[in-house]
Amino acid sequence: MTDVNAGVRIRLDLAYDGTDFAGWAVQPGLRTVQGTIEDGLSRLMRGVEPRLTVAGRTDAGVHARGQVAHVDLPMRAWEALAGRSHRDPETVMRTRLSGVLPPDIVVLGVKVAPSGFDARFSARERRYVYRVSDRPESRDPLTRRYVFWYPRSLDVTLLREASRGLTGLRDFAPFCRSRERATTIRTLVEFSWERVESGVDEGLVTATFRADAFCHSMVRSLVGAVLAVGDGRRDLAWLRTEAVATSRRSGIIVAPPHGLTLEEVAYPPDDELAERANSTRAKRTLD
Amino acid sequence: MTDVNAGVRIRLDLAYDGTDFAGWAVQPGLRTVQGTIEDGLSRLMRGVEPRLTVAGRTDAGVHARGQVAHVDLPMRAWEALAGRSHRDPETVMRTRLSGVLPPDIVVLGVKVAPSGFDARFSARERRYVYRVSDRPESRDPLTRRYVFWYPRSLDVTLLREASRGLTGLRDFAPFCRSRERATTIRTLVEFSWERVESGVDEGLVTATFRADAFCHSMVRSLVGAVLAVGDGRRDLAWLRTEAVATSRRSGIIVAPPHGLTLEEVAYPPDDELAERANSTRAKRTLD
Repeated sequence: MTDVNAGVRIRLDLAYDGTDFAGWAVQPGLRTVQGTIEDGLSRLMRGVEPRLTVAGRTDAGVHARGQVAHVDLPMRAWEALAGRSHRDPETVMRTRLSGVLPPDIVVLGVKVAPSGFDARFSARERRYVYRVSDRPESRDPLTRRYVFWYPRSLDVTLLREASRGLTGLRDFAPFCRSRERATTIRTLVEFSWERVESGVDEGLVTATFRADAFCHSMVRSLVGAVLAVGDGRRDLAWLRTEAVATSRRSGIIVAPPHGLTLEEVAYPPDDELAERANSTRAKRTLD
Repeated sequence: MTDVNAGVRIRLDLAYDGTDFAGWAVQPGLRTVQGTIEDGLSRLMRGVEPRLTVAGRTDAGVHARGQVAHVDLPMRAWEALAGRSHRDPETVMRTRLSGVLPPDIVVLGVKVAPSGFDARFSARERRYVYRVSDRPESRDPLTRRYVFWYPRSLDVTLLREASRGLTGLRDFAPFCRSRERATTIRTLVEFSWERVESGVDEGLVTATFRADAFCHSMVRSLVGAVLAVGDGRRDLAWLRTEAVATSRRSGIIVAPPHGLTLEEVAYPPDDELAERANSTRAKRTLD
């Protein structure tokens, strides 16, 4: 850390309410999470044009409680942050960045990243939760921004049966919005449904997803397809046919974004990061 | 129920996100909960001017998960609601009222009220919860509309010590905003603090209040006063002095409204209602 011309990579742990953002990724003229944070960082560090790399590029309206991003900064600018205070740059950046960001973005943590860390390519697993209220008495106006109010009753046993066949290593093309000519093969480690009896989601029906990575709109397409079975409008045979199609078809309704929250991104232990970084650098299609 | 000129009293169970309302009570030109529901009811029932009576007149920004109101309707209009459908008027009103209300108000229930029921004067107890996040890592942008982000760390043992002396039958004048020449004597049954380890409020510090009734801004003044002790800025001796003042003084900071939610209103069993209605009709100062 003696070369002042060197860079330093900072890991940011973030939470946001996606309701009033046009998604993560910067888009000209629109309020985005990335754009808002990059603007905030540039106010903190004059002369630096910070560019964030993120673990999960959430769509418009999708939330995050455990988003992870990284930004590369000149060491000189980073060390100057603390100024004449006796605090470390991490604390100063978290405090000052929180001060300039709007209340729908929270900076949960700021840390110098371990060697080889890349918020996107080092990520081993992403966990998303989709929240549904299927009973009028469980509709809470205070949580409506992140809970999908479903107009029909759901049978959790049916939801589980429907999702059981959709996990593992497979081609998720029928559940992916084609964005580029990229692979749609993913390993879906978990796709589970629960009618929650206690805890923070009491009274709701939730779907939990864990995978190495997700293609565009994959979680919401899977939710939409399985909900149609869970309320009785479709049967399992329909879903089995849809699931082996070679591309997305119109029969699958994509569930609305506001029920979806990126809860956690998992990374390997620090000592495995550098090795992993080299081996996965080529897989540019993962998201 | 054979006299079609008679009236019928309807009990409404309600929840709302108070963020975008100027409080419960109708005010000309402002968006209020009462005004919005009354407008919705009059759209359902032509020629009726519904007037709601409520258990807790919440201030601007205060939320409710268990608010109760009643409305008196002509029996003729009530019975006409179901029309030629085979559904009961309760179900029809809940469905249709939900259809015309904005998503920040939820109709949890519609029922013909038992004899002698008055949403305001029959209420035996109101329960409010005030929610605080005192740690940066527990700040969740998705719950920020109903959680007060406190800038200092709180000592729950101190909070409990401070609130212990404030319960029971006493004059809450030092914690009441004088609105009229009304009594400020109340019975505060519960004023308890908890650092919540599990459940829907996991990670938060909460204050629970139960009383026969509350004077204006009483809960938020009590929260403000006790928080000042709980973060070390004030000591118990200060609070003891404030608590016996004859009126509100400037030293007590009223906590912001968005942390406060009316969770529940308790009523006596149906067979006690008529008797109770007669005995409490005179106490017009309760709120």
